[in-house]
Amino acid sequence: MTLLFVSAADDPEEWAGALAALRPDIPFRVWPDVGDPAAVRYALAWRPPADALPGLPNLQAIFSLGAGIDGLADVPEALPPGVPVVRMVEEGLSAGMAEYVAWQVLDWHRGGALYRAQQQAGEWRRRRSKLAGERRIGILGLGVLGQSAARMLTGLGFPVAGWSRTAKTVDQVVCHHGADGLADLVAGSDILVNLLPLTPQTEGLINADLIAALPKGAVLINAARGRHVVDVDLLAALDSGHLAGAALDVFSTEPLPPDHPFWRHPRIALTPHVAALTLARTAAPAVVAQIARIERGEAPLHVVDTGRGY
Amino acid sequence: MTLLFVSAADDPEEWAGALAALRPDIPFRVWPDVGDPAAVRYALAWRPPADALPGLPNLQAIFSLGAGIDGLADVPEALPPGVPVVRMVEEGLSAGMAEYVAWQVLDWHRGGALYRAQQQAGEWRRRRSKLAGERRIGILGLGVLGQSAARMLTGLGFPVAGWSRTAKTVDQVVCHHGADGLADLVAGSDILVNLLPLTPQTEGLINADLIAALPKGAVLINAARGRHVVDVDLLAALDSGHLAGAALDVFSTEPLPPDHPFWRHPRIALTPHVAALTLARTAAPAVVAQIARIERGEAPLHVVDTGRGY
Repeated sequence: MTLLFVSAADDPEEWAGALAALRPDIPFRVWPDVGDPAAVRYALAWRPPADALPGLPNLQAIFSLGAGIDGLADVPEALPPGVPVVRMVEEGLSAGMAEYVAWQVLDWHRGGALYRAQQQAGEWRRRRSKLAGERRIGILGLGVLGQSAARMLTGLGFPVAGWSRTAKTVDQVVCHHGADGLADLVAGSDILVNLLPLTPQTEGLINADLIAALPKGAVLINAARGRHVVDVDLLAALDSGHLAGAALDVFSTEPLPPDHPFWRHPRIALTPHVAALTLARTAAPAVVAQIARIERGEAPLHVVDTGRGY
Repeated sequence: MTLLFVSAADDPEEWAGALAALRPDIPFRVWPDVGDPAAVRYALAWRPPADALPGLPNLQAIFSLGAGIDGLADVPEALPPGVPVVRMVEEGLSAGMAEYVAWQVLDWHRGGALYRAQQQAGEWRRRRSKLAGERRIGILGLGVLGQSAARMLTGLGFPVAGWSRTAKTVDQVVCHHGADGLADLVAGSDILVNLLPLTPQTEGLINADLIAALPKGAVLINAARGRHVVDVDLLAALDSGHLAGAALDVFSTEPLPPDHPFWRHPRIALTPHVAALTLARTAAPAVVAQIARIERGEAPLHVVDTGRGY
């Protein structure tokens, strides 16, 4: 009953330690050191090579190491048919994402970039600020991460609305859904926060049309995936002044290429895909709980619907 | 029954409008245009000239325009004896202060300065972050503003402790008090937030001794008054690396003099005393409610104890 770790982006030693502390009975192997292929029951994976998983006859579940499953869905030939792919849902990831969103929302809300520029210029100038209650936040995506961010933002006093593909109900959040709902959400968002899953339907969703429908002076925060955004459309809207700024944690190509205009854009606050990290320490208990479900003969939670892509 | 406005720092027109909307029956006058001195019942004041208020025989209350009352206590000769001085307690001020504290705490917690420097340098480097639950916040002062900030920070997931002169109980906050309590609070604060009133006892409290008792790598956020901090001690601790940074909204002299080393210090995030502003829009209802109390023969709330200074 082996667990196979397959990721170039995560630290196998941390995971080995965190899992061994909880389930010392489960052998932990790091691909390509598979051992007996028939013994591998579980895989913990991100962007697995195409030949890593299909040859494992008794694989029961593939646990994604990231919140999204695009690291797995992007390499469909690497996923053996019939084996459930499980999204990572763990407290550290949700908390980290909510922190990032709260941080970026507050930094724009309170004029962080303006005051930092004033400090550099030695300028003492008090600017009027809205209160949080006067700044409307719109969240694209009301899954685990979107709801976690929404809770934190309502706690800070912001009015929060959200949008999801299908109808949802979230406490203290005005929930929109479907195509009409998207137009309503966007038109009423002073700060738009993207936390959608990346699917063929959401790729490129944040394009010139959507951005034009935001109120003038709006701000975009993208903590989901770079390919949700059409980069040239975002740059055009920032340069025209229609958008006041953008906070970007994710990019179509990562690391962001050195010559990409996002790096030096004065209205972009850029972080290197650190909004929320799956931490072995907080995520190992979630993986172990999923394994326990499977051992009891239950289906794991948060299995990906490969048809809809999340 | 006139209300007299005496402040060079606030906008009388905004206040005139906000008060007239609620109590059109109360004439609003701006010093030095006092009209009949005997008609003045209320003063709304910040740093009044020494001769502005003492000649008003029927003055019933002096409302401070700021959260602190140092703008009044600093000019004791301007305060007619026996007239209650009332602190400004209003929702906009508390909310604004809590927002500022949350903003600065999150910016340090998430490595804002580091990531901004990396962006400028075109460097893609992911840094490990603690989660909020692993970052201990200590708040000096558990009055209205301290409690408001504490509530917001616990909502963000930070463990919060606080210190006040006398014992207090605040939900989800580890409360310390007195001299021994101060040492305990400081020793356990990764981020220390100052929201104390300025009194002879608290002036210069944040000096070399107190800073040395903070954990190495701690951060100071000062949103109370500049004179709580001994500037040279703060600079020495930043330069030695004992303190990782400071966010300062208030200064011993304001505006901060152009040659002050705080302006260009790489570990200081400086804002021009904008953490929380008394907004006429949100504060006028609080003043009107106080006037209604006085009219009913009740004492106003939040009267300053001139002995303790807050």
